[in-house]
Amino acid sequence: MAKPKKTQRPKAETPRGFRDYFGAEVTQRAEMLAKIAGVYHRYGFDALESAGVEKVEALGKFLPDVDRPNEGVFAWQEDAESDKPGDWLALRYDLTAPLARVYAQHRNELPTPYRRYAMGPVWRNEKPGPGRYRQFYQCDADTVGAGSVTADAEICAMLADCLEEVGIERGDYIVRVNNRKVLNGVLEVAGLSGDDKEAERGIVLRAVDKLDRLGVDGVRALLGEGRKDESGDFTEGAGLDEAQADVVMGFVNASEVITQRTESFMTKLNAEYPDVASGMEKSSAAMGGLKIEGRDGFRQNVEALQYLDELVSKSEIGRKGVEELKEIEALLFAQGYGPDRIVIDPSVVRGLGYYTGPVYEAELTFEIKDEKGRARNFGSVAGGGRYDDLVKRFTGQEVPATGVSIGVDRLLAALQAKGRLETTAQGPVVVTVMDKARMADYQAMVAELRQAGIRAEVYLGNPKNFGNQLKYADKRGSPVAIIEGDAEKENGMVQIKDLILGAKIAENATLEEWRDRPSQYEVPRGDLVARVREILELYQ
Amino acid sequence: MAKPKKTQRPKAETPRGFRDYFGAEVTQRAEMLAKIAGVYHRYGFDALESAGVEKVEALGKFLPDVDRPNEGVFAWQEDAESDKPGDWLALRYDLTAPLARVYAQHRNELPTPYRRYAMGPVWRNEKPGPGRYRQFYQCDADTVGAGSVTADAEICAMLADCLEEVGIERGDYIVRVNNRKVLNGVLEVAGLSGDDKEAERGIVLRAVDKLDRLGVDGVRALLGEGRKDESGDFTEGAGLDEAQADVVMGFVNASEVITQRTESFMTKLNAEYPDVASGMEKSSAAMGGLKIEGRDGFRQNVEALQYLDELVSKSEIGRKGVEELKEIEALLFAQGYGPDRIVIDPSVVRGLGYYTGPVYEAELTFEIKDEKGRARNFGSVAGGGRYDDLVKRFTGQEVPATGVSIGVDRLLAALQAKGRLETTAQGPVVVTVMDKARMADYQAMVAELRQAGIRAEVYLGNPKNFGNQLKYADKRGSPVAIIEGDAEKENGMVQIKDLILGAKIAENATLEEWRDRPSQYEVPRGDLVARVREILELYQ
Repeated sequence: MAKPKKTQRPKAETPRGFRDYFGAEVTQRAEMLAKIAGVYHRYGFDALESAGVEKVEALGKFLPDVDRPNEGVFAWQEDAESDKPGDWLALRYDLTAPLARVYAQHRNELPTPYRRYAMGPVWRNEKPGPGRYRQFYQCDADTVGAGSVTADAEICAMLADCLEEVGIERGDYIVRVNNRKVLNGVLEVAGLSGDDKEAERGIVLRAVDKLDRLGVDGVRALLGEGRKDESGDFTEGAGLDEAQADVVMGFVNASEVITQRTESFMTKLNAEYPDVASGMEKSSAAMGGLKIEGRDGFRQNVEALQYLDELVSKSEIGRKGVEELKEIEALLFAQGYGPDRIVIDPSVVRGLGYYTGPVYEAELTFEIKDEKGRARNFGSVAGGGRYDDLVKRFTGQEVPATGVSIGVDRLLAALQAKGRLETTAQGPVVVTVMDKARMADYQAMVAELRQAGIRAEVYLGNPKNFGNQLKYADKRGSPVAIIEGDAEKENGMVQIKDLILGAKIAENATLEEWRDRPSQYEVPRGDLVARVREILELYQ
Repeated sequence: MAKPKKTQRPKAETPRGFRDYFGAEVTQRAEMLAKIAGVYHRYGFDALESAGVEKVEALGKFLPDVDRPNEGVFAWQEDAESDKPGDWLALRYDLTAPLARVYAQHRNELPTPYRRYAMGPVWRNEKPGPGRYRQFYQCDADTVGAGSVTADAEICAMLADCLEEVGIERGDYIVRVNNRKVLNGVLEVAGLSGDDKEAERGIVLRAVDKLDRLGVDGVRALLGEGRKDESGDFTEGAGLDEAQADVVMGFVNASEVITQRTESFMTKLNAEYPDVASGMEKSSAAMGGLKIEGRDGFRQNVEALQYLDELVSKSEIGRKGVEELKEIEALLFAQGYGPDRIVIDPSVVRGLGYYTGPVYEAELTFEIKDEKGRARNFGSVAGGGRYDDLVKRFTGQEVPATGVSIGVDRLLAALQAKGRLETTAQGPVVVTVMDKARMADYQAMVAELRQAGIRAEVYLGNPKNFGNQLKYADKRGSPVAIIEGDAEKENGMVQIKDLILGAKIAENATLEEWRDRPSQYEVPRGDLVARVREILELYQ
C-alpha cells in the first residue's frame, strides 16, 4: 500500500499587500480617530457607518484619478439563486461612493444639508508598494446639499482644528485652498472650452497635474507639440499655439509669480514704512495668535486673488471661481483662521475629473528624515473639495457636496517622526508564579491591581524557569514584577521589582541618582497596590 | 435614426443582508468598544488588527458550527499574473481564524503566552434574516500558549468586568462555565469513545445541542431509534441501548437535578439550622459584596461539581474535566468572583466540534419585551472556551488557546431595552441665517461656540424660508437656535431660542414650572457662549 500522502500545510501569511497591526499601532490610531471624530462632531457632523461591501453598480466609476470603471476594486459575483444570476459585489474603495449611495437611498429621512463623517477601512485592488497597502483607513467629513462656499470654508477650518487636535502644532501645517473653476476659466481664456476641445483639455489637465514631475519645460512641451521622455517614448501634446500656451503657463507659474510679487511688496513696505508694516494684518481681536510670518501670508492671499483675477478676467466661470475664493478667505478670517493656518494657493490641483469647485489640501510643513537619513518635507496628509454631481447617477438630481478625507496613517507616521506619539510604557505589571499550587494567591493580587485601575497580569506560561518569567516581563515592557515565594508568604510580604530602574542600573550602575534606590525590595502584602502605584507614578 | 437608449440608473441600495448605521448607532457602539478595550487592556491583553481579507487556505475550515469548508464565506480569485493563477482571497468570517494565522506567522516575535484582543467587522455569506446581517462586529479576547485553566478563569472574570463596565449591573447577568471534557467523559462512560463510534458521537452531540428546541423527549428519541418531526420527516437516531441512553440523559438533565438537590438542601438547612445557613459562604474578606442569593449559588456550585463527579467517575477525561472546573471555581473565588457573577453550569454546550476544554457563556438575566410585547429573557451576549489546536494546521505544533467573543450588537440592544444608553440630545446648536450677506457674522458665532467645546453649526441650506431653518433644527435634535436679524445686530444683541423648552411648552402650556421661563429671549452678543452653556447644562 502506498503511504498516505502528507497533507500540505497552508502557509501562515497575509495576502500580498495586506498587513497586521499590533498593540500601540492599533491603539494610537484608535485614539487619533476618536480625536478627529470629536472635532467633526463639534462641527455638527453626524456619524455614518456603511458596510464594507457594496453592489458594484452602486460604486460606479467614482474612483478619483482612475478612468477605468471597476478596475482597482475587489469584486465577486454572488451565487445565482434559482434562475436569477447573482449580484456583483465589491469592497468599497473609498467612503465617498458609499455616501452617494446612502444619501440617494435615505435622502427623504436625512436632514438637508446633511453633514456626515465616516471612518473605516477601504480596499484597493492595486499593486502594493513600500508603505502602500491594499487596505487602509480613511477618515472623511462631507456636507451634502449645501451649494454655498460657506460649507467649503467650514471644512477648511475644521481640517485645521483636526490637525491641531491630534497634536500637529500651529506652524507645522498649512491648509491650501484653490478653486477648480479658476482652472476652468484659464482653459476658457485659452480657447479650450468648447465640446469639441475635450481631448485637448484632457491633455492640458494631465500636463498641469504633472508639474511636480515634469517641471515647467516638460509641461510647456506637452501643451505644444509633445514631449519625448528619457526612455525615448513620445507623448503627444495638446497642440496649443504660443498665445494659448502662455495663458496656461500663466496658471502653472502662478505660485511663483505670487511669491515674487509678495516678496517685492514686503521688501518695499518694510523699507519705506517699517513702523506700519503690520498694518495689513486686518486688525482684529480674533487674530491674537498670528505669527509674524502671517503678515507675508496675508499679502500672499491678496496677491494670489489679484493675480488670479488678472488671469481669468475674460472668463465668467473663472471670475466666479475667484469670487468664491475671496468669500472663503473672508469667512475664514471671520472665524479667526488667518493665513498662518489656511492660505489661497493656485498650485493645489488635486487630480483630474471629479472636483467642480473649491479644492483644499493640508500639508505638514516640517522636515523629516527619510530611510536614507535625507531631510525631506513631509507633505500632504489630507485633501478634498467640492464635487457637485454626487448622487446624480442614482436620482438624476444634481446635489452639491463638498468634503475632506484625512490620511490617518500618514498623520500617525508624521507624529511618530516628530516624536509626538505617547511612548509611555504600556506594559502590564507582571505577577510571577513561584509556586503553581498558589495560583489563587497570585490571581487575588492581579485582581486587586486591576480593580485599582492598574494594568496587571499573572504569568500564565510554564513557571518552572523563573528567568523565563522575567524575560517575558521584559518582552511585555512591564514596569514592575511582583514576586511572592513561600518565605514572603509566611511573613505576609511581597517582593516588588522595579524593572525600569533595574534596566537603568544595568546600563549605568554608577549614576548617583539611583545609588540609594534599590530596584527590588520587600513590602507588606497589604501595601501592594499603593507601592506599585508609587512606582508607576514615578515613570509617568 | 433611433432615439438613443436612456441609460438605466443604478438603484441606490445596500446589497441584500447589509445595512447602514447612523449617528448614535455608530457612536454608541464606538463607546462600547472603547470601554471593553479598556477592560481587556487592564487585563494585560494587547490590541491586534488584521486586515478584513485573508487567503482562503489560511482561513481553512474553522467556522464553528459549520462542517463545510469555505461555505458561508465571501471569496474571490485574484487576477492571474503571468502564468501563475491568482490566489483565492476571502473576507474573514470571525476574528479567531486570523488570530491563528497571525500567531503562526509571528510566533517568534510575540510573547508567550500571547494575550490579544481584537475588534472589528466580520462577514458571513449566509442567508440574512430579521436582525441577522451579513456584516457584524465581533469583539474578542484570547490567550494563546497557556494550557492552564488559570487562563480560562481569568477570561471569565474579565467577561464579568466587561459587562459591568458597559452598564449591565451585577445581578442582571450571569457567566456560566462548563467543560467539554465532562461531556467527553459522559460519552466514554456511555461506551462511545472508540474511533469506530464517531458517527454515533456526532448524532449524540447534535441531539444534546438541540435540547432547547426538541425538549427532553426529543433528545431521548434521537439517542435511540430516531425521531419523526411534526412534518413527518424522520431523523435517524444513534441507536444507543437503554443503559447508554440513561448515561447521556443524566448529563442532559444535569441542570434540573442540580437545582433540585440545591433546593432540598437549602430547605433542610434553613429549617434545621436557620442561624448558620450563611456558614456555607466560605467566609472570606474577598466576598464582601456577595448578595444573599449567592448562598444558593454557592450550594449550586457544590452540587454541580458533585453531580458531575458522580456522572463521569468511571472516565479519566471526565474526572479531569471536573477537576478543572473545581480549579476554575477556586481561582475565581480568590479574585472575589462568586456565583452571583459566575457559576458552574453543565447546560452550557456551545456548538459541536471546536472546543476542547472549559466553555463559558454570558447571559443577561432580565426580561425584555419582544416586538409583540411579550416578555422574554434576553439571553446570551457572549461566549467562548478553550480550543487547543489553533495553529496546528499551520505549524504542526499543538498550541493551547482560550478566548471569548462579546456580541456587541446584542449588548447594545440590551442596554437600549433597559433604557441605559445615553439619550442626551446630541444635536448641535443651530445658528440661523437671517441675512445671507452676513454669513461671516454667523460663522464667527459658531466658531466661538465650537472653541468653547459646544457642538454648533450654521444653517447651510437655502435661508429664504425661516420656518425651514427651524424645521431643520428640529430634525437635528438641536437644543438651541440662535437668531441675529438686522435689528439685533444693530443693538449688539442676539436671540436665543430654547428649543427643548419650546417643545415642552407646545406639549403642555399650563405646566407651572415653565410659566415664568420664556423659551426665546434676547442676550448681548458678548454673552452668547455663556448663555448657551447655561441652557445646555440645564438639560444634561
